[in-house]
Amino acid sequence: MPERGYTATKDQLLRRLNRVEGQVRGVARMVDEDRYCIDVLTQISAAQAALDKIALGLLDDHVHHCLTGDGDGRADPKQQADEVMGAVGRLVGR
Amino acid sequence: MPERGYTATKDQLLRRLNRVEGQVRGVARMVDEDRYCIDVLTQISAAQAALDKIALGLLDDHVHHCLTGDGDGRADPKQQADEVMGAVGRLVGR
Amino acid sequence: MPERGYTATKDQLLRRLNRVEGQVRGVARMVDEDRYCIDVLTQISAAQAALDKIALGLLDDHVHHCLTGDGDGRADPKQQADEVMGAVGRLVGR
Amino acid sequence: MPERGYTATKDQLLRRLNRVEGQVRGVARMVDEDRYCIDVLTQISAAQAALDKIALGLLDDHVHHCLTGDGDGRADPKQQADEVMGAVGRLVGR
Repeated sequence: MPERGYTATKDQLLRRLNRVEGQVRGVARMVDEDRYCIDVLTQISAAQAALDKIALGLLDDHVHHCLTGDGDGRADPKQQADEVMGAVGRLVGR
Repeated sequence: MPERGYTATKDQLLRRLNRVEGQVRGVARMVDEDRYCIDVLTQISAAQAALDKIALGLLDDHVHHCLTGDGDGRADPKQQADEVMGAVGRLVGR
Repeated sequence: MPERGYTATKDQLLRRLNRVEGQVRGVARMVDEDRYCIDVLTQISAAQAALDKIALGLLDDHVHHCLTGDGDGRADPKQQADEVMGAVGRLVGR
Repeated sequence: MPERGYTATKDQLLRRLNRVEGQVRGVARMVDEDRYCIDVLTQISAAQAALDKIALGLLDDHVHHCLTGDGDGRADPKQQADEVMGAVGRLVGR
């Protein structure tokens, strides 16, 4: 059974992603309606904060699974650490 | 006619936002299919980088319009500066 | 007299920068004493948060001066906007 | 002997932190000399980028040590994961 780290909160995660998708569509609508730039930026920041939260939640589950050992079959610890740090670097460095 | 700062590239902006919406939908699909967490995170980072670029583009246009004076009717410079810095703070501080 | 945007709070700014310098020196001392990595990271994050605050304060003053016109002699609005957005991009994108 | 994750590159790390300390002192000097705000901001961004790099390097070593098991005596994996994610959250969220 292909259990992933975030399976437990999968529904919640999908709902949050749905909401972000709606936020991005809302931003497009605001641009289409020539809404005030600063208000558009506020909406973009809200979508980004939501994505940050989702990403940190996913990473949190992953790191816990890697460290407690009931992982997902990718056994090599060095590779796991490299992958985690790659993801962290992309989150921090963008 | 309520021209906004980013009107010139409105089509381009809408296309980019469409693409981000598709990226977020893709992330949801990956979660639904129990795809590997690190790959999901990579996609989220891509969506965030795209949103960053869109936000900076919007802000760039807005700041240029504010400073060159062919703005959008919100004449008070102090309020404009407050709004710009509010948007910058939200972009940096999230 | 070469007045800059942040002249009014120059003392306050210098005190804050002094404190950040001390924080960075403290991080070096922690590394030298082989202190626990997570604690070192907490100190680094504190220094970064302080630098963010200083940078946003400087930018805030600058943007207000640019927009209200009692600027610092760099009159060209397009160049001012380019400079501001360059600084914002560096703050956001790092 | 209290070996830490980054012991191997301790000298290099101390040199880098020394350089950041000098950068922050340089920023204070620029402020004291009323240097142009945008140039001050560029220096601050450079110091922040250097701190980011130092922090990611420290975290990288720590995560590798946690996952490969030749850690530093804090054996509880759940606590390790919580600590790592706390540090990541502070790096991302500031």
